[in-house]
Amino acid sequence: MTFQSKLNAIIKKNNSLVCVGLDSDITKLPLNVSAQDNPQFTFNKAIIDATHDLVCCYKPNAAFYEARGNKGLQELKMTCNYLHGIYPDIPIILDAKRADIGSTNNGYVRFAYKYLNVDAMTLNPYLGKEAIKPFLEIPDKGAIILCKTSNEGSGEIQNLSVNGKKLYEVVADKVAHEWNTSGNCGLVVGATYPKELQTVRKIAGDMILLVPGVGAQGGDVEKIIKAGLNSQNAGLIINASRSIIFASSEDDFAEKAKTATKKLRDEINTYR
Amino acid sequence: MTFQSKLNAIIKKNNSLVCVGLDSDITKLPLNVSAQDNPQFTFNKAIIDATHDLVCCYKPNAAFYEARGNKGLQELKMTCNYLHGIYPDIPIILDAKRADIGSTNNGYVRFAYKYLNVDAMTLNPYLGKEAIKPFLEIPDKGAIILCKTSNEGSGEIQNLSVNGKKLYEVVADKVAHEWNTSGNCGLVVGATYPKELQTVRKIAGDMILLVPGVGAQGGDVEKIIKAGLNSQNAGLIINASRSIIFASSEDDFAEKAKTATKKLRDEINTYR
Repeated sequence: MTFQSKLNAIIKKNNSLVCVGLDSDITKLPLNVSAQDNPQFTFNKAIIDATHDLVCCYKPNAAFYEARGNKGLQELKMTCNYLHGIYPDIPIILDAKRADIGSTNNGYVRFAYKYLNVDAMTLNPYLGKEAIKPFLEIPDKGAIILCKTSNEGSGEIQNLSVNGKKLYEVVADKVAHEWNTSGNCGLVVGATYPKELQTVRKIAGDMILLVPGVGAQGGDVEKIIKAGLNSQNAGLIINASRSIIFASSEDDFAEKAKTATKKLRDEINTYR
Repeated sequence: MTFQSKLNAIIKKNNSLVCVGLDSDITKLPLNVSAQDNPQFTFNKAIIDATHDLVCCYKPNAAFYEARGNKGLQELKMTCNYLHGIYPDIPIILDAKRADIGSTNNGYVRFAYKYLNVDAMTLNPYLGKEAIKPFLEIPDKGAIILCKTSNEGSGEIQNLSVNGKKLYEVVADKVAHEWNTSGNCGLVVGATYPKELQTVRKIAGDMILLVPGVGAQGGDVEKIIKAGLNSQNAGLIINASRSIIFASSEDDFAEKAKTATKKLRDEINTYR
């Protein structure tokens, strides 16, 4: 099953465009979780059990696991294995923002699709299509390419003017019309940039857009839904991380994560 | 000790600008090595012991270790620990081409500088200075930013015309004159692009340039040395990976790696 069909099925089933970002920073876990053997996995398992019927996917960011080296990777794998076993219909996006030259990417392909067996991965476009071909040639796995990132300073490079267009528009255009030969591409556009999201939606047609930056980063839900929905009333993955998983730092973190996820899902659905 | 001073000291001591890329692809290791308990570490240890007096640094690429998940990271750490213990004067560059938004980068900072304790890391500029600040604010650790990468298709994005300049020139200019506030920045320019290397050298002054792509990728040593040396007759890190570490696929791989490293070092020095 492709990432795209898996995603569309769960969007319908859970009536949700919410992606929960499993940015499970070891330094921010509740004390009772930190004290356990596999703290990141224990935390993720509780978050997943509490939110699985309210989301369309999970997105662990590799940085928070690599911070702990081999131990962190092991718990990231445990998290993915848990999802595969108990909730196999929920896709996993590995947020890793990788890109290397041709053959080297095969290492990251193995990491994402053999070791972790996730459904999609975020990629950086700076090295060009030819470099990231190994990701573009796996039709079942989503290749979600950074376009306009949510951070405050993303315009420094991404808004540079290239023959009258902005660089992020050029990237959107290339991905939508030249790189997407296997039909597995998506784009990342920050929720903090609703105008740019609208521009990218126009360029990219019905393509899946991953939109991080609601919640802690302050993206406005109404604006992004109105700007970003595709012709199928979907095509958006709205990610929130900290505002959900760290909604409480106490023992009720999973319950509070559930409440925050439901609230975001329902708010999004108000505008669909 | 900063990355830069460590690098300059070993360049003098070993009279070498050669960096050996520890791209120790598990599928390409000699049979007798693959059969052992820690194959990537065992391979790296033999390569390092054979070449340590001929190099100015080692550059493991994270992709080849992450391909094996936690086991690979463990062997990457063993490799770094071995270097710290036995050859502490040789800097290590983690080739990871990372970049994420602000706080998330702290995970990669911990991975590179606490878990592995390497001396420098390669970074991707697409998210802008503000995003990669956590790397730019550690004066002792090198932040080596992709500028013009060695791959055939690097021009697709990097040669886009931005107000009459190419994007890679804009990146070189920004890194040299705006991002390098802690004096720890370097740039990556592929050996396959000697003209562009010359352009970047002019823009970046005496800054360290990491130049991969000699050997298997076919970069011309004479051209890149003439184009890339700084005013101190150095400032270049010339990386070869496959042509050195896989010079032989038999039991004599370390000996053949030594011969290939010495040959490259001496060839480079002919033109200095």
